[in-house]
Amino acid sequence: MEIEVFTTLNGIPDETINSKTIIVIDVLRATTTITAALAAGCLEIIPVLTPEEAIEMRERLEDDRVLLGGERNALKIPGFDLGNSPLEYTADVVAGKRLIITTTNGTRAIRRAASGRQVLLGAMINGPAVARVAAAGAADITIICAGTRDRFSLEDFLTAGLLVDELGNQGDFTLRDGARVARDYYRLHREDPEAAMKASYHGQLLAGLGMEDDVEYCAQVDITTIVPVYSSGIIKSPDRGTE
Amino acid sequence: MEIEVFTTLNGIPDETINSKTIIVIDVLRATTTITAALAAGCLEIIPVLTPEEAIEMRERLEDDRVLLGGERNALKIPGFDLGNSPLEYTADVVAGKRLIITTTNGTRAIRRAASGRQVLLGAMINGPAVARVAAAGAADITIICAGTRDRFSLEDFLTAGLLVDELGNQGDFTLRDGARVARDYYRLHREDPEAAMKASYHGQLLAGLGMEDDVEYCAQVDITTIVPVYSSGIIKSPDRGTE
Repeated sequence: MEIEVFTTLNGIPDETINSKTIIVIDVLRATTTITAALAAGCLEIIPVLTPEEAIEMRERLEDDRVLLGGERNALKIPGFDLGNSPLEYTADVVAGKRLIITTTNGTRAIRRAASGRQVLLGAMINGPAVARVAAAGAADITIICAGTRDRFSLEDFLTAGLLVDELGNQGDFTLRDGARVARDYYRLHREDPEAAMKASYHGQLLAGLGMEDDVEYCAQVDITTIVPVYSSGIIKSPDRGTE
Repeated sequence: MEIEVFTTLNGIPDETINSKTIIVIDVLRATTTITAALAAGCLEIIPVLTPEEAIEMRERLEDDRVLLGGERNALKIPGFDLGNSPLEYTADVVAGKRLIITTTNGTRAIRRAASGRQVLLGAMINGPAVARVAAAGAADITIICAGTRDRFSLEDFLTAGLLVDELGNQGDFTLRDGARVARDYYRLHREDPEAAMKASYHGQLLAGLGMEDDVEYCAQVDITTIVPVYSSGIIKSPDRGTE
C-alpha cells in the first residue's frame, strides 16, 4: 500500500482519488474547526462552496437546528451564525445542531475528494486518530492538502507529515515522494509544531487579524479521537452516531 | 521580493508567472541534461512537446547540425540521436550542434513558464550560478518543479531548496511557504543530496533501469556556471554567445 501527498487541489489525477482512502487537510482552520464542532456535539456538517449555497440550503432544510458557519478572507460571513474559529464551536453553541459550512479552501478540497472510497478530515488535533482509522481501511492513502488559493501551505504539509509519521506506526506503507518529504519535514518540527505553524503565511495572516489563539489551538497534536468522515455530501463522526 | 515554489505544473496561477523571474527544475534529468549540453558547447536547444513535433521541426530547419534528443518512459525515443542522459551530451557529440529535445515532464514545464519575464533552467549542477543570475533580476522569483506526471518529485523539491538557500545569500527575499519548506528540506540533506535523490521515486526508477550513474551526475552541486535561459522558444546560455 502507498501513501501520497498532494500540496494543492490542482491537477490531482483521478486515479489517485477513486477507490483510495482520502485524508483532506485544511488545518488552518476548516478541518480543525469541523473536528472541534463534532467533538462538541454537533450532529452533522454540510460543506458547501458558496455563502449563497449555504443560505439556500438552510431555507430548504426548514430545520431550526441549522447553523451557518464559515469565512471569506478569514472573517465571518455577514448573516452567518459562526465564523471559522474552532474556539467558537463550543458545546453550548453547537451541541445537537446541524451545521452548514463554507470556507475558501477547505470545502473545495472536501468536495474534490468525494470520489474516494473513504474520505476523512485530518488536522493536528485528531492526527493520530485519523491515522488509525485510515490504516484500518487497508487501501492506498492519498492525503490532500487544501493549500491557500492554489499555493503550497506550510501548515497543511506539516499536518500531512504528522499523518504519514503516524501511519508508519500503523502499517507497512510505501511512501511516494510527497509523503516522504512531508514526513521528514514534520519530524524536523515535531518538538514544536506550533512555532512552525506560526511561521507560515496563513499563521502570520491570522496573527495579524488577532487570531493567534486559533493558530495555537490548531497546532495542538492529538487532543481528540473524533474523526470526521465525509460521505454523500455530509460530514459526521461515526463515533458519535447520527442523532 | 518574494520567492515561491510550486511542486507541480498544475494550477499555477498566471500572476505568479507573468512578469516574474522563473526557474524551471526537472533535475532528473531534463534541466541537468540541457545544462550539460550547453556546457559541452551545444549552440542552442529547442524544447518541444512531442516526438512528432521534434521530427517535423528537424525537417523544417534543413540544418545538418541538428540533433534530436529526449525520452519517453526514461528511454531514448526510436529514431532519435540521443536519449535524456547528461552523460551522453559530451563535447564530441554536441559541440557546435543545435538540439531539439522532448521529455515527459521537463519540456511541458519549460513551456508553461514561457510568459515569465526571464526563464532560467535550474539543476543541482548549476544551482549557485542560477541563483546568482536570478537574484540579479531584482524581481519576485517563482520556482517551478516539473514533478513526475502531475505528482510531487522529491528531487525537484530538493533542488528548489538548494536554490532558495543560495538565493538567501544573494538578496533579501521573503519566502512564501513552498520556498520555506523546500529550503528547510534541502538543509536537512545538504551533506548528502545524492542519498536523498537516490531515495526518490524517480531515482529508484532510473537505478532500476541501470542509470544510477545519471542520478549521481545530477546530484552534484555547483560543477558548472552555465545558466540556460529560455526565450522565444529557444534555450541558450548567454555566457556562450549564440553561434
